[in-house]
Amino acid sequence: MYRFESDYLEGADAQVLNALVRTNAEQTPGYGEDDCCANARTLITSLCKCPEADVHFFVGGTQVNLTVIAAALHPFEGVLCADTGHINVHETGAVEATGHKVLALPSEDGKITAVQVRDAFNSHINDVTHEHRVRPAMVYLSHPTELGTLYTRAELEAIFAITREFRLRLYVDGARLSYGLAAEPEVDLPFLAAHTDAFTLGGTKCGALFGEALVLPKPEDWPFFRYHIKQRGALLAKGRLLGVQFSALLKNGRYQALGAQANAQAQRLKAAFRSRGIPMLCDTLTNQIFPVLPNRVMAGLAQNFSFAFWAAVDGEHTAVRFCVGATTPELNADALMAAILALPESPNA
Amino acid sequence: MYRFESDYLEGADAQVLNALVRTNAEQTPGYGEDDCCANARTLITSLCKCPEADVHFFVGGTQVNLTVIAAALHPFEGVLCADTGHINVHETGAVEATGHKVLALPSEDGKITAVQVRDAFNSHINDVTHEHRVRPAMVYLSHPTELGTLYTRAELEAIFAITREFRLRLYVDGARLSYGLAAEPEVDLPFLAAHTDAFTLGGTKCGALFGEALVLPKPEDWPFFRYHIKQRGALLAKGRLLGVQFSALLKNGRYQALGAQANAQAQRLKAAFRSRGIPMLCDTLTNQIFPVLPNRVMAGLAQNFSFAFWAAVDGEHTAVRFCVGATTPELNADALMAAILALPESPNA
Amino acid sequence: MYRFESDYLEGADAQVLNALVRTNAEQTPGYGEDDCCANARTLITSLCKCPEADVHFFVGGTQVNLTVIAAALHPFEGVLCADTGHINVHETGAVEATGHKVLALPSEDGKITAVQVRDAFNSHINDVTHEHRVRPAMVYLSHPTELGTLYTRAELEAIFAITREFRLRLYVDGARLSYGLAAEPEVDLPFLAAHTDAFTLGGTKCGALFGEALVLPKPEDWPFFRYHIKQRGALLAKGRLLGVQFSALLKNGRYQALGAQANAQAQRLKAAFRSRGIPMLCDTLTNQIFPVLPNRVMAGLAQNFSFAFWAAVDGEHTAVRFCVGATTPELNADALMAAILALPESPNA
Amino acid sequence: MYRFESDYLEGADAQVLNALVRTNAEQTPGYGEDDCCANARTLITSLCKCPEADVHFFVGGTQVNLTVIAAALHPFEGVLCADTGHINVHETGAVEATGHKVLALPSEDGKITAVQVRDAFNSHINDVTHEHRVRPAMVYLSHPTELGTLYTRAELEAIFAITREFRLRLYVDGARLSYGLAAEPEVDLPFLAAHTDAFTLGGTKCGALFGEALVLPKPEDWPFFRYHIKQRGALLAKGRLLGVQFSALLKNGRYQALGAQANAQAQRLKAAFRSRGIPMLCDTLTNQIFPVLPNRVMAGLAQNFSFAFWAAVDGEHTAVRFCVGATTPELNADALMAAILALPESPNA
Repeated sequence: MYRFESDYLEGADAQVLNALVRTNAEQTPGYGEDDCCANARTLITSLCKCPEADVHFFVGGTQVNLTVIAAALHPFEGVLCADTGHINVHETGAVEATGHKVLALPSEDGKITAVQVRDAFNSHINDVTHEHRVRPAMVYLSHPTELGTLYTRAELEAIFAITREFRLRLYVDGARLSYGLAAEPEVDLPFLAAHTDAFTLGGTKCGALFGEALVLPKPEDWPFFRYHIKQRGALLAKGRLLGVQFSALLKNGRYQALGAQANAQAQRLKAAFRSRGIPMLCDTLTNQIFPVLPNRVMAGLAQNFSFAFWAAVDGEHTAVRFCVGATTPELNADALMAAILALPESPNA
Repeated sequence: MYRFESDYLEGADAQVLNALVRTNAEQTPGYGEDDCCANARTLITSLCKCPEADVHFFVGGTQVNLTVIAAALHPFEGVLCADTGHINVHETGAVEATGHKVLALPSEDGKITAVQVRDAFNSHINDVTHEHRVRPAMVYLSHPTELGTLYTRAELEAIFAITREFRLRLYVDGARLSYGLAAEPEVDLPFLAAHTDAFTLGGTKCGALFGEALVLPKPEDWPFFRYHIKQRGALLAKGRLLGVQFSALLKNGRYQALGAQANAQAQRLKAAFRSRGIPMLCDTLTNQIFPVLPNRVMAGLAQNFSFAFWAAVDGEHTAVRFCVGATTPELNADALMAAILALPESPNA
Repeated sequence: MYRFESDYLEGADAQVLNALVRTNAEQTPGYGEDDCCANARTLITSLCKCPEADVHFFVGGTQVNLTVIAAALHPFEGVLCADTGHINVHETGAVEATGHKVLALPSEDGKITAVQVRDAFNSHINDVTHEHRVRPAMVYLSHPTELGTLYTRAELEAIFAITREFRLRLYVDGARLSYGLAAEPEVDLPFLAAHTDAFTLGGTKCGALFGEALVLPKPEDWPFFRYHIKQRGALLAKGRLLGVQFSALLKNGRYQALGAQANAQAQRLKAAFRSRGIPMLCDTLTNQIFPVLPNRVMAGLAQNFSFAFWAAVDGEHTAVRFCVGATTPELNADALMAAILALPESPNA
Repeated sequence: MYRFESDYLEGADAQVLNALVRTNAEQTPGYGEDDCCANARTLITSLCKCPEADVHFFVGGTQVNLTVIAAALHPFEGVLCADTGHINVHETGAVEATGHKVLALPSEDGKITAVQVRDAFNSHINDVTHEHRVRPAMVYLSHPTELGTLYTRAELEAIFAITREFRLRLYVDGARLSYGLAAEPEVDLPFLAAHTDAFTLGGTKCGALFGEALVLPKPEDWPFFRYHIKQRGALLAKGRLLGVQFSALLKNGRYQALGAQANAQAQRLKAAFRSRGIPMLCDTLTNQIFPVLPNRVMAGLAQNFSFAFWAAVDGEHTAVRFCVGATTPELNADALMAAILALPESPNA
């Protein structure tokens, strides 16, 4: 079985694994107060051109999402996000479990717009009964989104401007950021540091064994943040494991390079599907592609390839997701490519 | 100013107030463990033809909603409701503050259907990643709904059947139940007791000074329920005040009679609006009506009458809500009737 | 049965009840945005000599405690209080249900000291692992305490000074404040307004039908407070009921007068007990007394009088609580007095 | 600097690290639904002689504690534990953040007794106001405790019997279980599986890179448990990392062997301290020792050795903690041994 259902199916990139092995016997203090973490922090803030930023390391994405959102909001406040957003649909209500409503906005491609944010805030504040409604106080975006799409620089600037106007926090979930950085270099780390209140550099789906790095460009807005991390069970005892990995992952452009290579493979597969008359659910330039397969073709591919069910499009067709990740074996992509090219040119016929 | 913006603008029905005055000097134990509450409980279970039911009294609607929902759900479970449902839009995230997601379903008229509930549950359970999603475990209905509409007996039977099949709890918020009982006698108290896991008889909006009575037809499904009430700050020290009121309100059919009288007034006003060419946002047979007013007419009426903004329909028209409650002075309805009849026959012209 | 087990066994003081009856038919807006509440607020801030204070009305004590504490604290913060404090032992974990730890300090007489607060804070902050501990961020006092005792002006000044030094919030639960004001006039409303971040004037136990008034002397420290109230289910629809009652209760010194009268009765009973050789668990000058009764005497009194079990002192003696409240019938105190005086002079003999 | 302040200062045991390296390139499904986890589960249930048990893997101890406790309790319930228990003092209120009170019982040596549990439960249930108190519904023990002490088989049997009688859940936090198994072989895995509702085999402090294995001997009591894990942010995407580690750690008695070796080193150091007249705060047979050092000696040792401050004993003496862990370099213990033996025989003199 060649696996493509997600981008966390293997271990770590060799550079990351080697660093863990190399440092295994060293003694360090716990809880991220060690030199490995300090070095990784410096590396990240330097890449972000934001020396004043604070950086915290987490093991997983749901963990960082719930911690940062719960830290930002007053009890009666909620977080705006696309209805397809990870926090709205795929975290078993983790945000609600901290007491906060996720305020979902309709979305076709995983993205929301500055106009939607403005309207949501105005609709709240102009309602005379607004004290009876949850107050929107934060915007959650994912970049790339759950549908593999990307925000442009202009779109993010517009959303950022609205959040400044209304004093909302802007949080960008970068669980797959390496793929985004590679596909849309205009939205780079310094841009994100200058245009968000918090964002993550995903590790788990981008070549690390595990881990997410949270960047807080204005630490003074996030007082006592380590208490929050500990309270949510998210303070790793051997915190250094995260520092070691992020240092290795970010050194010499490795992070972006891994992203670029996976994107390229995914785009190659997308072109192959299209050459066989298979359309995409939505167009993406990153490492996730969403072909709409005739069900017969889907069944055929499923013999040798694993992929994720996404949505039934009609009685005859199903949208599925193939991910190529930072650590997907090249062999896999080659095998899939061959299988696609072996399809008849018009599989719908 | 004649007030119509809601049904809690006055004090209590005379019968209720007199009972409070009459019993004021009596000494009783606290926290609802007194004879007044015992009597009111017996009266209610007898009206419900469900002697085994448990009855708990609360001061307000948000309080009872959050308590009963939090008591019913495991942490990872959520409650299905219409997107217009009170718990979804008008309780400042009170349910989320107890840790649970409100799973909103689209609705035009404040109602949801058995098919929607079935689809939502199946869509959850058939998703291979269902452990990453909030599990639907309860259905919240309001009857009458926030839009004044009513479920039929058949609709409730169908929803009840689905909840039995999937082992979901069914909770009916009857904050305005007196108006529902009067307008749709087929959905009576014994029917509700036989077809729900929990429902309320609203007092605050139905002639009491304050209070909601929660009926739990199968108390064995709600162990230790009084601990929940106390923990949520909802156990009234002088609990007897609720027993006294509900006894007075429910005696000799007073509850339903107050509902019938308010419905009749509201329907008279609805007919008057229609006679002036003013349509309703949705048709209702209960005490709330939703005329779609030309903005000019709205401004005129606002001189002497208060009512609630509901929704901008277009640049020229606004849907508003007029409530006639159990304690609305007759005088008010007469004055409004006169003002409506004084409108030109085609106010849109 | 003459009842003394608590101070919420009857309805309301006549002056309060009359006000409710008199205003019953008036129409007002809901949720405390009416003239009755406005007037009560003005009356309270004027009595507090603190015109800038904000005043919010709640139905019950647990409700106000959990709302004010949850509004004040960040998720990782806790509230210091005496181990006998109401929030620690008698609210079914209502504070914890909002996510916060109650940090109990040992106490003999229901009081804690400035030194205890200072030590608790220092012990936290000096612990190198303090990020792994709940941060003390608020002090909860009750005045009178659950044991009927009172803080002196000097004690409160010392605690207040510590809370300023460490930037802790100071909250005084005044569920029985009328008795405190009467017994210790030096700790008056202006003093409390100047030396707390929040305090309550209890109504339920002090002559109202129900209700607590929360005073926030510096409203700028409590932004968006009404959202909190609504979210906790604590925003009474007919909010005016609270305004009407507090206006009536506080007019012309009625509040303090009711307290003084109950204190006097309680002290008379205390003296009678002592005249029979019965000691007190702790000395109190307010409306609660805690005689340590020989079990045989306890059983005898229990024939005609209800009172609260407090603690087994030894195999032969039990501390119990008698409350005389603002609305306790005089008849009750007379009957109890007679029964005490009928005891032998040395009931332990 | 030779480090001894805790047992998570290095990476992993070589056997564990090698397994991670060896399996790095393999593709597996995510979230613990892979063969590595399946194998580790089978190994654990077989060691526990409890084939019907369920096993879940977590990254860290606070995470597993908060998840299992929140899954077990109704909102109004709390968990009994020693006042020194990790959940009470060292998890920043993680349990309270899920809404539950930690009911601390006094303890000298980190342990609580069956009698304390019985008394706490009876004191709750016999209080007529018990509905106003948090209901004890679970017992949390750590074994070894935070003070390095161990429960005997008889003590655990007695506590287990009480929890059956009162229908409380019994949860044993085995963050350092390898050291416990080695020091007290009578309390072995089959015994724990037969005498608890849940317990953990710690990995982080026992030779793994990270991870805790939770054993639920009666899975039918923990329905839908994976939803809980996901909701708390504790479901590791590359779950296989935990399966791989626990398989490697538990194979061929490695887990217990690592514990035995660390215990032996710690005991050797303890004997050395004692040979220099230095007493222990409490006696322990596991890998943590708590010498009470003269402050001058403490300062001397701190030049080359890191250890944890525990408590000021008097103005001249301080109790500190030295941990020898599964991965502590032998070199460290040798250096410390030499330093101790270089102390004068009566350092207090």
